[in-house]
Amino acid sequence: MPTVNRGKDRALEFIELFKKIAGDDIVLADEESLHHYAHDETENLHFLPGIVIKPRTAVEISKIMVICNQHKIPVTPRGAGTGLSGGALPHLGGVLLSMERMNSILEIDERNGQVITEPGVITEVLQDAVKEKGLFYPPDPSSRGSCFIGGNIAENSGGPKAVKYGVVKDYVLNLEIVLPTGEIMWTGANVLKNATGYNLTQLIVGSEGTLAIVTKIVLKLLPFPKHDLLMLVPFNSLEKAGEAVSAIFRAGFTPSALELVEINALKIVSRFVDSTVVPVTDEMEAHLIIEVDGNHQETLMSEMEAIAELLLQYDCGDAFFADDAQQKAELWKLRRRVAEAVKIDGYSIEEDTVVPRAQLPALIRGVKALGKEFDFEVVCYGHAGDGNLHIRIKKPGSMYSLDNPDVIPALSALFVLVKSLGGTISGEHGIGLVQKAYMPIVFDEAGLQLMRGIKKVFDPNHILNSGKIFDH
Amino acid sequence: MPTVNRGKDRALEFIELFKKIAGDDIVLADEESLHHYAHDETENLHFLPGIVIKPRTAVEISKIMVICNQHKIPVTPRGAGTGLSGGALPHLGGVLLSMERMNSILEIDERNGQVITEPGVITEVLQDAVKEKGLFYPPDPSSRGSCFIGGNIAENSGGPKAVKYGVVKDYVLNLEIVLPTGEIMWTGANVLKNATGYNLTQLIVGSEGTLAIVTKIVLKLLPFPKHDLLMLVPFNSLEKAGEAVSAIFRAGFTPSALELVEINALKIVSRFVDSTVVPVTDEMEAHLIIEVDGNHQETLMSEMEAIAELLLQYDCGDAFFADDAQQKAELWKLRRRVAEAVKIDGYSIEEDTVVPRAQLPALIRGVKALGKEFDFEVVCYGHAGDGNLHIRIKKPGSMYSLDNPDVIPALSALFVLVKSLGGTISGEHGIGLVQKAYMPIVFDEAGLQLMRGIKKVFDPNHILNSGKIFDH
Repeated sequence: MPTVNRGKDRALEFIELFKKIAGDDIVLADEESLHHYAHDETENLHFLPGIVIKPRTAVEISKIMVICNQHKIPVTPRGAGTGLSGGALPHLGGVLLSMERMNSILEIDERNGQVITEPGVITEVLQDAVKEKGLFYPPDPSSRGSCFIGGNIAENSGGPKAVKYGVVKDYVLNLEIVLPTGEIMWTGANVLKNATGYNLTQLIVGSEGTLAIVTKIVLKLLPFPKHDLLMLVPFNSLEKAGEAVSAIFRAGFTPSALELVEINALKIVSRFVDSTVVPVTDEMEAHLIIEVDGNHQETLMSEMEAIAELLLQYDCGDAFFADDAQQKAELWKLRRRVAEAVKIDGYSIEEDTVVPRAQLPALIRGVKALGKEFDFEVVCYGHAGDGNLHIRIKKPGSMYSLDNPDVIPALSALFVLVKSLGGTISGEHGIGLVQKAYMPIVFDEAGLQLMRGIKKVFDPNHILNSGKIFDH
Repeated sequence: MPTVNRGKDRALEFIELFKKIAGDDIVLADEESLHHYAHDETENLHFLPGIVIKPRTAVEISKIMVICNQHKIPVTPRGAGTGLSGGALPHLGGVLLSMERMNSILEIDERNGQVITEPGVITEVLQDAVKEKGLFYPPDPSSRGSCFIGGNIAENSGGPKAVKYGVVKDYVLNLEIVLPTGEIMWTGANVLKNATGYNLTQLIVGSEGTLAIVTKIVLKLLPFPKHDLLMLVPFNSLEKAGEAVSAIFRAGFTPSALELVEINALKIVSRFVDSTVVPVTDEMEAHLIIEVDGNHQETLMSEMEAIAELLLQYDCGDAFFADDAQQKAELWKLRRRVAEAVKIDGYSIEEDTVVPRAQLPALIRGVKALGKEFDFEVVCYGHAGDGNLHIRIKKPGSMYSLDNPDVIPALSALFVLVKSLGGTISGEHGIGLVQKAYMPIVFDEAGLQLMRGIKKVFDPNHILNSGKIFDH
């Protein structure tokens, strides 16, 4: 467990000043708190912050940032700590700014189909609250039961519904942010179309907390679709399953979810989740999970039947239709818990590759070949409809981690492959700390220099989550 | 006609150097050419460039930019010159870079539902080419028959279909750009989801040619919907028509177009377009044009009937259903030619306000009140489903223009109103030259400073379309 020890942290010198801003109870420096915020869901990394602050308002954050900026104290904003790229790890110590107390949904605006929320609201809580009004916020990362909406914005999260409904960036209309220098501002307006100046809103989305701290979020909502249908289709060949994915779109269908799970991943997760819905036989190599949604049940039935018919050309077995809400929930639970299950099984490193969807078979072939070349075991699953394939690797007898020298050439080869297929390193997890070494594979120096330049415009003293995405 | 005369332009000093880059025929300095590129569709503005260059490749542009950057010669990129905010006007002279020869569609990738194109392709040509393959590129500005796709990206254009399908930014996956300093680079990858570094792609979209020159464009495409239905509904009250707009969405419908045209605008355009489809009576104040699309004709019929039923609560007259392709085309032609018709009628200044859609009635009321206060005539039309209302004003007996001192307080009051309703200055036309004075109404100094900082990162010598969006 690589913990960096750096002696007395400079943030501690200013602890009384921080406490004056909003009271003793928002500033913590006890051992238990520091250790609680030293890790996220990224592999086995551990970095102690100097102090933890849990602000309640943008004004408090502004005052904290003014002090930190003046004294060049590192600040790491943190949502729920469910990130998979180390974006919330305080690797430089300093102030860990936990957004957990800014957890109010401020307004559900039914007339305009918008919600205004603070960043510390759990994604599923937000989804359920708007669903009660007949409204739909589609982005649904696997961790939606625990992750914060603010973290989703930092990482531009996706999830199964992205294939039809898009990712977080497609729903963010406007953001209130606090700049590293303390100014509080809005990035845009609460409108569906905006051609007024540079798109600062989209620059903040996916910037992993390196440019500003998000304190209020305005999201677009859709009418909640009245019906959905779900089926699971086994394939005798993983590659054929990959081919079937783009065939579905070419035939004119747009499923609301199109997930791929390799058989090994399904076998592993089946041991963790008590479920009877999935028939697993030895001939199968992979399953597709296919959902359609809309307002007309009969239309959906005919669409689903047409998709099932089409898939017969790709060497699939009998489709399993989820009959009722319980079977649907079971199937989704299986899918959502794959990452956690295979991690416990020893697949410690998760990659988040994304390619144009018709390149999935080539990516899958390439990944398996790399597994052989570098002697690791590999398991694939993910949002196939988006070309977003999660790849987990393990080497029996050895624990892979960030600083393992064996890992770097293997991942470099993987990302070179992904790039050659028109894809990139991360579809929805972000770059954070653990992928930044690989950025030069997908961006040349001109692109990286632009990013560094933008970072400096927002954060001239490099205090906000610096050393994430790229080194400055 | 305000023409700036600045004597001999510095770009002329380097004309032989520019000709060496790719031949004499790409560089023009004759009077006719200079005057041809001195204006766009924005009011009555006229600025002569020093020279006109029509490059054919990114490499040529790179070489041109290196010279211009070294010698600090202003460069103005230009699409088809259909812009409505003066973004393509060479107000500082120098090099006018016309993209008209980079007009090839490079690849329609049916397997991935993507198209790779050069920027000088006419939007409708691109739409028709992909439609032949069963694919759909939805953004459709009124000028689609003449505007370039590159200009659409510069301005983040919209059009009627945006209400269901989104605007240009929602379709741009990746861009090849040339920086003002000459580097050629890609902003992202050809993927549907991307969490790999800052979103440089979305920073370029809508940046109005001030950050980089777009030389290749990768767009996401959808399956082309099989059916559509169109109806026109008259309302006895303009405000009630505005109220009906958000009611449609609240009831769970998402039309593929939802346009509003005030009766005066319809009367004017009817004089220009020979059409029998629109019944106009004296009691009417406005019409809504409503389209639904999808793959199932019967579903669309029942949706349209339910919408028509709902609208009865908003004091509307009998709906007119377009029976066939010809009637649909006539109706759309009427709508698309409104801007041109009212301009000829003397409504010379067009504003492009956008508010949350439920605020449309408040915006309409406010605009009419401002018309009385400032003694101008006003006509409203636009993409009501998006809250994007185009407002044209005229003052009988006086020609409004950019530098008319009467205009500034009137427009300032309009934008203060729009801001107070949660909206902003431009939904799809951009800020360019003619709206930049009003930017401080919607962005405070912190936001403008960020934009200026970003501009400087991309363009340290301020050579590329400088003085658009904001002054540096």
